[in-house]
Amino acid sequence: MADKKQEFVTHITPRDKDFSQWYTDVVTQADLMDYTPVRGCMALKPYGNRIWELIREGLDKRFKETGHENVSMPMLIPESLLLKEAEHVEGFAPEVAWVTQGGTEPLQERLAVRPTSETIFCTMFAKWVESWRDLPLKYNQWCSVMRWEKTTRPFLRTAEFWWQEGHTVHATAEEAEEETLTMLHVYREFAEQQLAMPVYAGRKSDKEKFAGAQATYSIEAMMQDGKALQAGTSHNFGTNFSVPFGIQYLSKEGKLEYCHETSWGASTRLIGAIIMTHGDERGLKLPPAVAPYQAVILPIAAHKGGVMEKCQEVYDALKAAGIRVRLDDRDNVSPGFKFNEWELKGVPVRVEIGPRDIENGVATLMRRDTFEKMTVPLSELPEKLPALLDDISRSMYEIALRFREEHTKIVSNMDELAAQVNGGYAKAMWCGDRACEDKIKADTGATSRNMPFDQTPVGDKCVCCGRKADKVMYFAKAY
Amino acid sequence: MADKKQEFVTHITPRDKDFSQWYTDVVTQADLMDYTPVRGCMALKPYGNRIWELIREGLDKRFKETGHENVSMPMLIPESLLLKEAEHVEGFAPEVAWVTQGGTEPLQERLAVRPTSETIFCTMFAKWVESWRDLPLKYNQWCSVMRWEKTTRPFLRTAEFWWQEGHTVHATAEEAEEETLTMLHVYREFAEQQLAMPVYAGRKSDKEKFAGAQATYSIEAMMQDGKALQAGTSHNFGTNFSVPFGIQYLSKEGKLEYCHETSWGASTRLIGAIIMTHGDERGLKLPPAVAPYQAVILPIAAHKGGVMEKCQEVYDALKAAGIRVRLDDRDNVSPGFKFNEWELKGVPVRVEIGPRDIENGVATLMRRDTFEKMTVPLSELPEKLPALLDDISRSMYEIALRFREEHTKIVSNMDELAAQVNGGYAKAMWCGDRACEDKIKADTGATSRNMPFDQTPVGDKCVCCGRKADKVMYFAKAY
Repeated sequence: MADKKQEFVTHITPRDKDFSQWYTDVVTQADLMDYTPVRGCMALKPYGNRIWELIREGLDKRFKETGHENVSMPMLIPESLLLKEAEHVEGFAPEVAWVTQGGTEPLQERLAVRPTSETIFCTMFAKWVESWRDLPLKYNQWCSVMRWEKTTRPFLRTAEFWWQEGHTVHATAEEAEEETLTMLHVYREFAEQQLAMPVYAGRKSDKEKFAGAQATYSIEAMMQDGKALQAGTSHNFGTNFSVPFGIQYLSKEGKLEYCHETSWGASTRLIGAIIMTHGDERGLKLPPAVAPYQAVILPIAAHKGGVMEKCQEVYDALKAAGIRVRLDDRDNVSPGFKFNEWELKGVPVRVEIGPRDIENGVATLMRRDTFEKMTVPLSELPEKLPALLDDISRSMYEIALRFREEHTKIVSNMDELAAQVNGGYAKAMWCGDRACEDKIKADTGATSRNMPFDQTPVGDKCVCCGRKADKVMYFAKAY
Repeated sequence: MADKKQEFVTHITPRDKDFSQWYTDVVTQADLMDYTPVRGCMALKPYGNRIWELIREGLDKRFKETGHENVSMPMLIPESLLLKEAEHVEGFAPEVAWVTQGGTEPLQERLAVRPTSETIFCTMFAKWVESWRDLPLKYNQWCSVMRWEKTTRPFLRTAEFWWQEGHTVHATAEEAEEETLTMLHVYREFAEQQLAMPVYAGRKSDKEKFAGAQATYSIEAMMQDGKALQAGTSHNFGTNFSVPFGIQYLSKEGKLEYCHETSWGASTRLIGAIIMTHGDERGLKLPPAVAPYQAVILPIAAHKGGVMEKCQEVYDALKAAGIRVRLDDRDNVSPGFKFNEWELKGVPVRVEIGPRDIENGVATLMRRDTFEKMTVPLSELPEKLPALLDDISRSMYEIALRFREEHTKIVSNMDELAAQVNGGYAKAMWCGDRACEDKIKADTGATSRNMPFDQTPVGDKCVCCGRKADKVMYFAKAY
């Protein structure tokens, strides 16, 4: 294996030659996932799975801080439940995997492998909610879901993917809207602060909203090819589900009222978003908050007396300081090979320690984001490294933000829009008509992404039909 | 809802009247789970789900400390993979849920909703292992699995359940056996130290071993009705799966060798085991390590000046000390109602704070395990409570251990065995023949549980056939 790895680290397709192939090269060569014999389903390998665990921990902490509790619902959903909300079933039925046989018996009713869990949550909520005192219910679950997609790409679109889905029940429309926006903000803050990924937060058009939602909000990131990636969504259902599922509560005044609901989700797509926001010719660049190893220690001339001992000492000190650190003590590959491999895997900081460093009482550090090298006294490492990691995260965010600003343009006609969405976001006025959205999609391949909360007009005519328009909308091609 | 709860807390069937009904009452009234419209599948409610999260955290930490990494595999497995290992498919095929339709198309090949994941792990291992340098691979996954069971009971036997499954690949038979025993020991230590649950660790008979395993080891706990509950298993597959799946490695000497594999698992059954090991007439008794709340603060005469402020202060101090604490500040139920509810939910320590306590600078504590009351100076609580929780855990373990010892007896003939397994474990000599196991099952309802590592003979004749016997075996009725 060693010899094979010696070769593969240099075989990443350049981004500007073929961005799509570059992505596939990084995903597979950084050992994040593998293809399986199950159509459209991937296996998360330890390195990719660990990134997901760290995303999960970061989000879960935020969900708990905002008063949510985790639950676990069945993975199979009877067809009759799926059929209860008309728009919902229309949206999901074409991509459902159906269980029709249990053991040796054919089933009376087909069971869907959950494509999402609104219908089973709502069924249980109808049992669990009786009075205003039971509200709000603020639940979340971590699981995988299945959508029978025709074409798949690792992390971006797979038949099975891992995600969380929040489901909440409220007494009033106001509370449901507040929850919807609170969770959108949680996603936005997490993307920006932890994933170093700037996002546009806003409201989806009716065409693009979730099947069954009253309103859908999203955060939209920009990949390095200028395309959009929806990185999290938050839905206000109003009473769209509580009516067909009969979720009612007795108010303080003794009246039976329908509940207002929300749901919100983020998935393993975020790993694809990280790769395409930050990666470069050498591979992955991981934001420190979700890097399985935030620093890797590489012994130089490891056979020389004292080198391994010093590396071990530094490892212990960094670990004690709460840093996720790895000591690469393999003796069957060269330091050069290790440099390549850990760059490919996107470890934020490389810590080299060799005889000369030890003589000078320092380590030689390299930042993965800028390739900048620096020497730091060994004794100061446990204190300096966390600050360096913060700086890397900030700097990665700023570079991504600058890229996004440079690749977002205000457009006022279809020619400008078509040109702009070839490598970026178009900000435009839109009349609000579905016909214009459809035409934009047909003519340029771009879809409406979302309407920012700041609706300061950037014109007064619809970019498509030229009629009076008062909606500011981002358009882009999307993953 | 409040009024209903006021009633329900007193409605637990006594254990000695109907142990089975007592169990069901506790499970539902402590709000751990609920039944769903999906046949045999339960929903884990926040309190039950949180116990599982804490079990998961405790085990996951141990898995990582012993060098394992988490991965995520597809939840669907093509039928052709399941068919590769003959014993395995025979064991699992009758209880598989089959996906036969994807979206609008019937599938060419049926896909099993995973009942366990050996076959997909082995398929991937065959891709991932090439040389001795790749070994060992020590992986684990947290997921849910589906077995189409005819009769189900919450936590003990459900169609879907949540678990972890470790899967490892080794170069030699010795390493695989060592791994198998290491993980058995991890389960044992976790059960004893964290769940306060004594277990018999040993080796299963050929009849009772896992479908496809060379050897299966288990930990067996004793419930308060004297029945056994298998609380964790660890399997050595030898080359049983690596041969049909073609998992080979090139040795240092350049020879192609088959790998040796293990797998091991523990599941949400553990929650059932906790309930039936420790629970009493008032409900759950949770071991502190997996209690969602280790202490609950109950304000007494909360309307009196200073009470709520003091309670909040104590809450903050306990939280800062790393204790999972809850302040029950509900004003619509009485302290008596709260006492009942938190006893039912098994919170290890109740902390009452009222005007008189505050005057004396103390809190009144009650241990859930012994109902012992004590007063502790408020300022000493953050320091004293962790020690008290440790003491509760030790004491719960000792009581469970004493119960087990009192309900385990050496037996030397079938009459004694039949009598003993009506409310306990029988320790007996066994010739090793399957025919005797079958007869014991038919005549007494007991199954062989496991053979302890200490095989000091307790006789010389088989408890069943009377022929010469050299195996010490535990027999019991089992969940």
